[in-house]
Amino acid sequence: MPDLTAWFAAGRREVDEALDRHLAARAAAVMPPARASGPGVSGDAEDVVQEAMRYSLLGGGKRLRPLLALLTGEALGAGRDLCLPYACALEMVHTYSLIHDDLPAMDNDDLRRGRPTCHKVYGEATAILAGDALLTRAFEILGEAYVELPAPRLARTLQAFAGALGARGMVGGQSRDLAAEGKAIGLEELQRIHAGKTGALIRVSLEGVALLAGAPEPAVRRLAEYGDLLGLAFQIKDDLLDIEATAEQLGKTPGKDVAAQKATYPRIVGIDATRTLLRETVDRAAALAADLPGDRDRFVQLAHWVADRGA
Amino acid sequence: MPDLTAWFAAGRREVDEALDRHLAARAAAVMPPARASGPGVSGDAEDVVQEAMRYSLLGGGKRLRPLLALLTGEALGAGRDLCLPYACALEMVHTYSLIHDDLPAMDNDDLRRGRPTCHKVYGEATAILAGDALLTRAFEILGEAYVELPAPRLARTLQAFAGALGARGMVGGQSRDLAAEGKAIGLEELQRIHAGKTGALIRVSLEGVALLAGAPEPAVRRLAEYGDLLGLAFQIKDDLLDIEATAEQLGKTPGKDVAAQKATYPRIVGIDATRTLLRETVDRAAALAADLPGDRDRFVQLAHWVADRGA
Repeated sequence: MPDLTAWFAAGRREVDEALDRHLAARAAAVMPPARASGPGVSGDAEDVVQEAMRYSLLGGGKRLRPLLALLTGEALGAGRDLCLPYACALEMVHTYSLIHDDLPAMDNDDLRRGRPTCHKVYGEATAILAGDALLTRAFEILGEAYVELPAPRLARTLQAFAGALGARGMVGGQSRDLAAEGKAIGLEELQRIHAGKTGALIRVSLEGVALLAGAPEPAVRRLAEYGDLLGLAFQIKDDLLDIEATAEQLGKTPGKDVAAQKATYPRIVGIDATRTLLRETVDRAAALAADLPGDRDRFVQLAHWVADRGA
Repeated sequence: MPDLTAWFAAGRREVDEALDRHLAARAAAVMPPARASGPGVSGDAEDVVQEAMRYSLLGGGKRLRPLLALLTGEALGAGRDLCLPYACALEMVHTYSLIHDDLPAMDNDDLRRGRPTCHKVYGEATAILAGDALLTRAFEILGEAYVELPAPRLARTLQAFAGALGARGMVGGQSRDLAAEGKAIGLEELQRIHAGKTGALIRVSLEGVALLAGAPEPAVRRLAEYGDLLGLAFQIKDDLLDIEATAEQLGKTPGKDVAAQKATYPRIVGIDATRTLLRETVDRAAALAADLPGDRDRFVQLAHWVADRGA
């Protein structure tokens, strides 16, 4: 699949540049400008949070969610002005969730994207705040980018996007995941964990662009369904990679799931059944691709890429 | 000012009911429903986060920010359907900031609104997640409530609201506050801390409603300016209360600022000068009230209430 790989590389550059821009573009400051002299803390306290945001956001990463948004935009014939800001919001929110999940009170992880985690570099307080600020900035970007969009597209996107992040989505999944540590859980509960923890955001990476573009309801729904399968395949593969890959490949500590007695597909159904499940999920996603708008081959390739990736 | 007090009491009941509704109204679940039997963690992991959200959100509080939103709505002749959802979003965001600020890695506080802080009851991980989920739910409510609103009102509100919360607003203020602990800072830096930490959200409590209502630009600006002064007065009074009031009155630990060597107005300029500054700020706000839409007396009363409150 050379063309998808090339498309990914180009898209990743576009996303990285846009992320850099969206972080540099400071929202209207609500505080008066800092004075160069006089007593007081230097302007740095605020800057430290912004530096921590940049550190975690711009420190590599697959950019899967933004790429899904761009790909959906192309499939719907929408321009970059429509999907690139949303793509950035997705990556900011994904990064916020990584920063908070890595905290000592949560998964207590030292390594992320091949570098020390945010709290290891900046301390816990700044890491919590950097996560909060990235989550907030994601919504601010939606407000900045979609001023011209006819109602009710922004409202509907906001519902889907925020819904994917909340107590019934990403936050709920992380909470379930923490509660399941060291316990024997079944396949069903594992799937609920993943549907919330990673699935919801991957689904809304496609669904949100369809809502922004004002796509017809059936197209929105099919893209969301395809996104669900893609998210499931992504997570199954992640569990396999935790066993098979090295730290260098992963950019995070491998074997961590096993060590933390995390519930994973291999642990619950065994490695062979996990591989079979991955194949089946990819096949279902590829089959769904026939009903998607735009270039169906690209969506087929994408499903295979998720399962075949090395990290 | 008996009528404002009565209006506050009624408004607070309205807000509390709406908050309860907005928390109960679950967003479309992205996860399949829980099965009653079978292996696995019970549905409780998700519920614990929701319980923690309820505990912190519905456990009392002055509801100042939502009341400011309702009052602004009345001044602009807007119905409750316009300002009540936004009022709830404000209180959710305020509560999220309290939960995160109280964490051990931040201000490490045990008491809030007269009860143990969220992390004391539910643990740090759940407290972090409950804060994240409240922040997220606030944005989701905006998406749910403002589907019918003509563009670009939602987008502009989103900009102002999210901007007030982010690295240049509330998060920035908290970061500055942490950096200033134990250091000698000047009045200017103190004002920057407060402008971010509490001022930005109070300002946008009024400004956001004006944007939602499609108020003319000068009215939006004047309400925002009045909100700035109100926020300043509120914080000066807070610093005085930390010295003068008891734990029972405050619902949080008094003398905490002094103990933590926090920069406060009394510490920097002395108690008498602080009281003078409070009076001056209230007078400036009351003077501005003449240019505000609706019942100017109410805005004058409000400024006085902020300075005269006992907790």
